[in-house]
Amino acid sequence: MSNKLTERKKDYSKWYNELVVQADLAENSAVRGCMVIKPYGYAIWEKMQAQLDKRFKETGHQNAYFPLFVPKSLFEAEEKNAEGFAKECAVVTHYRLKTDPNDKAKLVVDPEAKLEEELVVRPTSEAIIWNTYKGWVQSYRDLPILINQWANVVRWEMRTRLFLRTTEFLWQEGHTAHATRQEALIEAEKMNDVYAEFAEEFMAIPVVKGLKSESERFAGAEETYCIEALMQDGKALQAGTSHFLGQNFAKAFDVKYASKEGRLEHVWATSWGVSTRLMGALIMTHSDDKGLVLPPKLAPNQVVIVPIYKGEEQLKEISKKANELASELREAGISVKFDDRDTHKPGWKFAQYELQGVPLRIAIGPKDLEKGTVELARRDTLTKEFVNQTDVVEKVKGLMVEIQSILFQKALDFRSEHTTKVDSFEEFKKVLKTKGGFILAHWDGTAETETKIKEFTKATIRCIPLDAEKEEGICMFSGRPSSQRVLFAKAY
Amino acid sequence: MSNKLTERKKDYSKWYNELVVQADLAENSAVRGCMVIKPYGYAIWEKMQAQLDKRFKETGHQNAYFPLFVPKSLFEAEEKNAEGFAKECAVVTHYRLKTDPNDKAKLVVDPEAKLEEELVVRPTSEAIIWNTYKGWVQSYRDLPILINQWANVVRWEMRTRLFLRTTEFLWQEGHTAHATRQEALIEAEKMNDVYAEFAEEFMAIPVVKGLKSESERFAGAEETYCIEALMQDGKALQAGTSHFLGQNFAKAFDVKYASKEGRLEHVWATSWGVSTRLMGALIMTHSDDKGLVLPPKLAPNQVVIVPIYKGEEQLKEISKKANELASELREAGISVKFDDRDTHKPGWKFAQYELQGVPLRIAIGPKDLEKGTVELARRDTLTKEFVNQTDVVEKVKGLMVEIQSILFQKALDFRSEHTTKVDSFEEFKKVLKTKGGFILAHWDGTAETETKIKEFTKATIRCIPLDAEKEEGICMFSGRPSSQRVLFAKAY
Repeated sequence: MSNKLTERKKDYSKWYNELVVQADLAENSAVRGCMVIKPYGYAIWEKMQAQLDKRFKETGHQNAYFPLFVPKSLFEAEEKNAEGFAKECAVVTHYRLKTDPNDKAKLVVDPEAKLEEELVVRPTSEAIIWNTYKGWVQSYRDLPILINQWANVVRWEMRTRLFLRTTEFLWQEGHTAHATRQEALIEAEKMNDVYAEFAEEFMAIPVVKGLKSESERFAGAEETYCIEALMQDGKALQAGTSHFLGQNFAKAFDVKYASKEGRLEHVWATSWGVSTRLMGALIMTHSDDKGLVLPPKLAPNQVVIVPIYKGEEQLKEISKKANELASELREAGISVKFDDRDTHKPGWKFAQYELQGVPLRIAIGPKDLEKGTVELARRDTLTKEFVNQTDVVEKVKGLMVEIQSILFQKALDFRSEHTTKVDSFEEFKKVLKTKGGFILAHWDGTAETETKIKEFTKATIRCIPLDAEKEEGICMFSGRPSSQRVLFAKAY
Repeated sequence: MSNKLTERKKDYSKWYNELVVQADLAENSAVRGCMVIKPYGYAIWEKMQAQLDKRFKETGHQNAYFPLFVPKSLFEAEEKNAEGFAKECAVVTHYRLKTDPNDKAKLVVDPEAKLEEELVVRPTSEAIIWNTYKGWVQSYRDLPILINQWANVVRWEMRTRLFLRTTEFLWQEGHTAHATRQEALIEAEKMNDVYAEFAEEFMAIPVVKGLKSESERFAGAEETYCIEALMQDGKALQAGTSHFLGQNFAKAFDVKYASKEGRLEHVWATSWGVSTRLMGALIMTHSDDKGLVLPPKLAPNQVVIVPIYKGEEQLKEISKKANELASELREAGISVKFDDRDTHKPGWKFAQYELQGVPLRIAIGPKDLEKGTVELARRDTLTKEFVNQTDVVEKVKGLMVEIQSILFQKALDFRSEHTTKVDSFEEFKKVLKTKGGFILAHWDGTAETETKIKEFTKATIRCIPLDAEKEEGICMFSGRPSSQRVLFAKAY
């Protein structure tokens, strides 16, 4: 626990991996590419879930649950979606193991228990859900359908990293059905806005809202909205996507409704999701060489109290005061952990809570009891001060708000400093090499140019920003005309 | 929605299936044995989850998440557990599909993407979790580990029924590790108590706490605690189990800790779970021929308000009053739905909310506005009365408590009436045939007798009740001595 992390500037990727493991967030498992999300990491994810779930319900969505498996014949029904996910899906072919005839202690697949039709472990649920919606929709009265699902999905990724890219991950996937194109488009953009608001208000991560270029769209989507965040190493991370699926799935699964006028029409669809990948974004936006830095709104423990004592008698007195303070803080809505374990020294605890990103640490020793003070340490600034015990609650309440806002501002400043407008491909390559970050440049709108830029630089179009000003210009690569700058970056 | 249900006395099983579908709780999917949990059913499950999760946390447990897949070599490590689940598990053998060379629109399993080691979709997670705990435990300081996981699991059941037995189901599984046998035993019993308290206080289902006989134990357990409930058709339903696993998994996965005295010891384990099967128990305990009856504490909508009106003007006035009432009720902590849809008639709405088990229905028409009243209808008794608008909040608050308690009492009375002590096998068979229910009888403690009774009657030992008085007697089947009556029943 007291191992020092590799410094970020030395090896950012190593720092990240070490932090995730040492802060007890997650670890690799015995299953290739699958992670174990440890209790502390899961507690942060639960806080994210609760906030997102609240927002989904406030915008009229209900939760439901659909099967883990997609029969192959359904999986292949929507051509582009199938093509996009077939290359990386886990396939169930048998439903039984039997004792190995050559070794009684071993099990082997029972060839007699072969499935007639293979089952794909869902990489995403459009197929199984739209096959279900077919039975739910007859008339315009049955629309819209506004459903979300919290679930695990599996994509057979070849290169995996904890939280950022894992074979199995947890996510939520919204799947909605609408009577009109316009309504579905509004829904897709609305849910992207919900993600943006959540990212900025709770995760303290500034995001750019935009549309994906055609080649970066979700397989089967006609338009993909996204939020893009910038990590400390100058690489972008796609933090959430919301897809306008047009009538592709309705046509593939023959989902039609009778309109008010009595015409049979195909239904319009959206889907939208965020995943445990957000944990990676959270870590890489705020943390430092000492470990995780958590925005107060997502910290499982906002305050930790550590007693400094010698002997039982001192501990007893300090505990009394600590428990009083903890109660007062809890009444004020602050989550507090009082760590009075005698198996670990205060210094070890300080290091641990720094590593785990607890926003505020309160230490109470015998001198504090005499003076009526506590020592208050901030995780974000690593500064300490003495505070009168009578002022602690107000002070902490204020700091919760202040730290949340400072973290956001800091990330926003970083992003501003690392967003560069360039007008030539030379400049583009230079910026990519020297400082990285977001690059705003003109692009001619063709997949051909996009592919070439990617081949030469590994940078991709993260999005076509929604709030960007129109600006006539010429494509930095092809010299052809362009009416808006788009956002480039190397990305996770 | 207005289809009448088959009467329970006519065909209980058909009534159940119709109710689940018509009340919009769940439906069968395109995947053999897997269900779709619809939003209304899922909302009830979410209420159960929230209560259980709160109790788990209050008893010191934390949530975490472990992989969906179990590599075959880990799966087979604990022999009995493997044997118990090998016969009914889904096996992933490949990680890619490719275009069918004979039909470009189809996909086939890519034989080049065969896994070196097959992956079992978890039927339960002891194996993958104990393999992980191995890395977490070195000394007594690392114990206990108190972890719960909310997850989906897959067991390839041959005969499935919505909620009661499905190939995939949702559940929680607690997995704890302890330094001593005694501590693990206490944990296993404590969590069974948590289940019992939840079932009785929230689901209004009386349960018998007991131990399973050896042949009914979980595969790999040394002792299985359980709660058993009695359904309206006289059949028992196992509502939750909590297992003392001894050192079986610690030995299979080599999980040892250094004790305070410095000795290396194997760790002691428990696991415990309840699943979406509880939905089946809920339905079959309280519901009637009109549909679902929900205890107020688990009802997503505790009150529904239906306006009775002719024309826009009336609706406007009634809505004003209805919204006022709804706000007052919500302030009092009651969940309220105001259904002002103009696409459906009041009679249709009444029938729908009866079918969906909403505890209280308030109707407001023009005469109510004049008189300052509302019509209040109870789902449990199907009775109606007029209540002054000024009294509604107090009345509803009182009824929430009253209905919850009446439902429990009714179920308890039913169970008392359907619990019979018998002293001979003849009597046993007669009671089983004529009234069913729980039967308390002496048993000689042997698996042989248990099996024969099952063969002759299909009844099984549901549990050896924990709170039963010691009573000397003779086994009703073998005539051998017995010191306690055990609980028999036919079961789901």
